[in-house]
Formats: sequence, structure tokens, C-alpha cells
Amino acid sequence: MAIDYQKRLAALTGELEALGLDAFLCGNPFNRRYLTGFTARDHGIEESSGLLLAPRQGAAMLLTDFRYRLQAENDAPWLAVKEYERGLTPLLQELLPALAIKSLAIEADYTLVSQYQAMSRSLEEKGVRLHPLEGLVEKYRQCKDEAELALIRRSVALNERVFQEIFAGIAPGQSEREIALALETRMRQLGAEGPSFPTIVAAGASAALPHAVPGLEAVAEGSPITIDMGLILDGYCSDMTRSFVLGQADGRYAEIHRLVRRAQLAGLAALKADVSGKEVDAAARRVIAEAGYGEYFGHSLGHGVGLQVHEAPRLSSRSEAPLQDGMVVTVEPGIYLPGWGGVRLEVMAVVREGGCEVLGTDTTWLDLEDA
Amino acid sequence: MAIDYQKRLAALTGELEALGLDAFLCGNPFNRRYLTGFTARDHGIEESSGLLLAPRQGAAMLLTDFRYRLQAENDAPWLAVKEYERGLTPLLQELLPALAIKSLAIEADYTLVSQYQAMSRSLEEKGVRLHPLEGLVEKYRQCKDEAELALIRRSVALNERVFQEIFAGIAPGQSEREIALALETRMRQLGAEGPSFPTIVAAGASAALPHAVPGLEAVAEGSPITIDMGLILDGYCSDMTRSFVLGQADGRYAEIHRLVRRAQLAGLAALKADVSGKEVDAAARRVIAEAGYGEYFGHSLGHGVGLQVHEAPRLSSRSEAPLQDGMVVTVEPGIYLPGWGGVRLEVMAVVREGGCEVLGTDTTWLDLEDA
Repeated sequence: MAIDYQKRLAALTGELEALGLDAFLCGNPFNRRYLTGFTARDHGIEESSGLLLAPRQGAAMLLTDFRYRLQAENDAPWLAVKEYERGLTPLLQELLPALAIKSLAIEADYTLVSQYQAMSRSLEEKGVRLHPLEGLVEKYRQCKDEAELALIRRSVALNERVFQEIFAGIAPGQSEREIALALETRMRQLGAEGPSFPTIVAAGASAALPHAVPGLEAVAEGSPITIDMGLILDGYCSDMTRSFVLGQADGRYAEIHRLVRRAQLAGLAALKADVSGKEVDAAARRVIAEAGYGEYFGHSLGHGVGLQVHEAPRLSSRSEAPLQDGMVVTVEPGIYLPGWGGVRLEVMAVVREGGCEVLGTDTTWLDLEDA
Repeated sequence: MAIDYQKRLAALTGELEALGLDAFLCGNPFNRRYLTGFTARDHGIEESSGLLLAPRQGAAMLLTDFRYRLQAENDAPWLAVKEYERGLTPLLQELLPALAIKSLAIEADYTLVSQYQAMSRSLEEKGVRLHPLEGLVEKYRQCKDEAELALIRRSVALNERVFQEIFAGIAPGQSEREIALALETRMRQLGAEGPSFPTIVAAGASAALPHAVPGLEAVAEGSPITIDMGLILDGYCSDMTRSFVLGQADGRYAEIHRLVRRAQLAGLAALKADVSGKEVDAAARRVIAEAGYGEYFGHSLGHGVGLQVHEAPRLSSRSEAPLQDGMVVTVEPGIYLPGWGGVRLEVMAVVREGGCEVLGTDTTWLDLEDA
């Protein structure tokens, strides 16, 4: 199942046609990869490793610098590669008039105000107008095709394998940081590019911080532990959270854990095409609120996952748009009690007509008396 | 040597005074940390873990969400923390009029066009005007004080220690990826937050790619190897590159290595306060160009290092501004021959009046007949 980059690009140039624009300049590295296969990562938004220039008519090309030229040519042999020596703007000043491009769509959600101001000035001199647009490529990325789902399944399977291997060896006295490092090292030994976000291992009261940074705190018997981890395999992300205790859980922990699991199951039951993210969020949230813990579930229920670990769509109280077949989202309710700890449970699922398909098979603690 | 955040903030509010603006909203996580001590990292520019609101008069405060509230309070106990529940803009719509803020400086180089457009609309309704400005905090960050230099020295020392430990065990047959993983694992075992950028281990012809991604290529005797690595310790970055061969280097390799080292020494000799980055770049580049390899040194000579691994100032042909005492930069000339490999040598140095202070003591291969 090879990815058909030319087909993706054709959808986009069709849209330029409809918008009456001459070309699209794509700098977001995930959009660029989606459209071309060029796999370079950027060191932040100010340090691009290259851009795609896709004219409405004529051949698309990758613009990059000396450092990434060979990689661009290797990754996207079907595209011409142009090198900029004195930065992107001087190259565009030369290239756009030569290609008769007078209106250029750019990514409003991947262009800094400072970049936009400088570029506008330099290109207007050459008779080119910039048109900042939002979500031009992201909207295509939301629904995954079968080739992408196969890659995501592999990413999820590897993530679970790494979790299970390291989970089996967790013992009282190990620090959060030590466990996080063991997880990330094992990911990479098994072929992942790396974690899809900094691994969270939160022990004891730290588990009350949804985005805790692993520290020197040791895990202890009977005390809450949350592990939130994901990896990148062949460009595609996974994301999963498990909460558990070593040894025997006390009654309160077991009660909260079961409640979060019931909320998760309610979210999964509501998840299907044509329902809004808001409704799915509400279905899970209701379970927690009715048990009196509503104020301790302070984040939204989930987010899309693909080339980025956080991407559209969202499952939040503000997500009005209907979900579509092939979207991949997390379902991750949590309860966080300051001073005590927390429980978050997260799985990924594919949105389908009439229901959803949960990705992965890990059931660590999820089956603690399901429902 | 504790960091005096209040003093840093006072310099900034003094500047607001001069600009006639009522407040500054700071979202760049490195600027935010520099001004407040709040250490959270962001998951990309669209996923802020909080912002500093610094009015010209009155108390500054951290704005964050549920997930980072505890960390903000722990890291910056001298600041009030306000939580936004429905996103940043609704909170600002409430807060700014209450504080009589009518003009708000924002970071042009850390605000997306889409964010700016949406925020402008919502705040103009409330009588607040946005003023996008560039480099407001970055210019202060360029010159490091003694407390920062102490942290950078520790980061450099740890980076060298990790390199030397792993270097001692490199043997033919190990893959680039295996060595990179060993380096990054060791960094974290020894207390680093993690690498300051993805570690580069490039063997054989891959060493011709300045930003090679470590792959399955094995290192071999007599073939070029380049390792470019850095780490983050207590927030501060290090960055170093060594190029070497296992076993005996052939005549050509030794010649190119010596040439790059001579260029580096020429750069270091030129590096001092009041000289421009351009002049330092030219001093090193001249050595390589005169030997006939000019076209194979395609990147600039160096960049600032601090809270970010790439920050101002730059040592490039376009850097006109005079360098200042206390700036910390890399000096990293290279020669890259497609199909053969490459050599890059990188050290960090502090700019001083009349000269520079090279940071670190590692001399792996640098002393291959110096000069």
C-alpha cells in the first residue's frame, strides 16, 4: 500500500483552481511530508528544512538549502529540488515571476507574523500577493486512508509492546525518570524514530499533574502511577495512557479507576461518524460529573493522531463539526485530585460509520472489573 | 548565583514605558522561562503551556491552563497564576479591560498569522490594540550573565563526558542509530533533560549530509564518522561536533580534517567583542576557500547557544551587528564531499573583550597536528 503523493497534490491544486490562486507554498513539515514524502523534521518554525511550492499549473518543487538537498532528492525523487543559498525570500523573488505566479497561498497557521510581514514586503515588489489560509492541508489529513491506518496500527502495536515489556519490570524504588528513560530507549531499540511527545511517568501526588515531567520521585507500592507514552514509527504517531498501582490498590483508587474506565467506555460508545466531538466529550464527561468528580476532569476528552500526535479533530466541548469515517482520535478521560494523585486512561480509535474501532489490544488495568 | 527574574522583568517593563505600550504578552517558552523561571515546555507553537502577562505598571502574572497550573505555581512562586478554561482569548477579553490595558505588545516572531488575526478581532472589540514586535526578549538573552555561564559550562562539561564515554566504546559494525541512542541514553542517565537537538551520527558517505538522520549504516574502520550532539541541563544547551575515523585515517581524510581545524582556529582567533559575526565567518571561510574547498562549506560558521540550541547571534555572511561580551556561540566549519563523507568540527566559545574563551576541554582529534 504505497502512498500516492501525486493524488494528494492533485486534490490541493484542484482547490487552488477553485480559489483562483496561482500556487501554494507549504512549510509545515507535517503537511509537506503528507504531500511529498520528504521526511526531514524542522528545528522549530524558524528553522525550516524546506518548503513545497505547488503551482496550480506546472510541476511542483521542493525548495531547500544545502543541508537537506540530498535528503529531499532521496525522499521525493519525483519532485525537482531547488536550493536557496541566501534564504527563501530571494529565491521566491526570482522564481515566482519566472513562473508567472501572482497570487500565492501560504499557511496562516504555520507562518509567523514577522515572517509574513517581511515576505509580503519583498514579494509585493515583484507583483506577488500572499493569501494566508488556514487548514488547507490539515483537513485532508484528518481522515486516514488504509495505507495510513496500517502505519498507525504498527505504531500502536509497537507502543504497547514497549509499555508491556517495561511495565513487567517496574519495581518500587525506581524513579519516574528512570522508567521514562527505559521506555524511550526501548522504543528506539525496536525501531521507533523516538517518542511522539515527552513520555510522562507520574508517581504519587505528581499523577495529579496531567502533564507532569518525570523527576526523581520513586514509584512506591500502593501509590498511583500514570504512564502516558507514544512513539513515532515511519512518521506515524501513537499515544496511550495507563494508570495503575504496584501491589494492592486501595478502595478509593479502585473506585476512581473504575469510574474513569466507565467514562472512557461511554466515550467510545458515543464515538462514530456524523456525531460531533462535543457530543463524544459530553458522553464521557457526564459519567464523571454524575459521580461528583466533574471539576477534577479539567481537559478535553481527546484529539486526532496521525503524522502529529496532536492534530485535528478534537473531542472537546467546543468541537461542533461532525466526525468522519477514517478519523483517528484518542479517548482519554481523567480524574486528578491535588495532593493525592490521578487516573487517566487513553486509547486510540478509528471513527467508523455506526461506531468505532479501538486500536490496540493492551488491557493493563482496563479490565479491572470492566463497566 | 540565583537568577534575578524580577530584574529581568524590570528591564522589559522599562522598555514598555519607552515604547508607550501598556503591557507585554510573552508566549515564547524560552522567553517566558527567561523572564519568570516557569520551566514548562510547549508541544509546538499551537500548544502553549502558558503565557506571561507583564503590565507596564502593576504585578505580572502567568496565564495557563489546568494542566500546568501546579507547575507554574511551583516554578514561579513570586507570580500570580491565572487559569484559562475556555482558551487564552476569552481570559484576555476579561482581564485586559479590568487592568486598563489598551495597547498590548506581542511577539511577532512567536505569533502565527492565524492567531494574530483571531486575537486582533476579539481584542479590538474590547478596545485593545495589538503591537507585534520582534526580538523584545531575545536581545537580552544574547549576552549571558555569570549565573547563565555557569549553567552553560555544566551543560558543556556533561556533553563532553557523555561523548568521551561512548566514543571509547565505538567499534566497527555498530550502527549510526545504535551509537546515537547510546549517547542520548547516557545523557539522560547522567541528569540531562535530553538532547538539545536530535543527535547526529553520520558514517561514511552520510557524513556528507550536514543534518544526517542516524540510520542503519554501520561505522567501519577507515571511513569518516561525524557526531554532532548536545544536551539540555537545567534548561541550558550544549552543542559540539567531532569528526574522526576508527583506525588509521588515510592521507586525504587527515588533510581535510587539518584544514577544517585550521579554519576553526582562524574563526576562534577572529572572535571577540565589537567584531561582526560576518567577519568571524569570513576568517574561517577564507582558510577553506583558499585551499579550494569553498563550495563544500555550504552553511554558516556558527550560532548563539543558551536556553535554545540555536539562538541569536549568528556567525554568517549576513551578520552585520557587532558581537558583545558574554555572547556564547558555536564555531563549526565543515567540508562535505558528496559520495565521500565530511568533516565538521564544533566548539562553543564565550565572546570577550579582545578575544574569546573556548568552553570545554575535549580535544578528540582536534589536536591532530594543530595548525
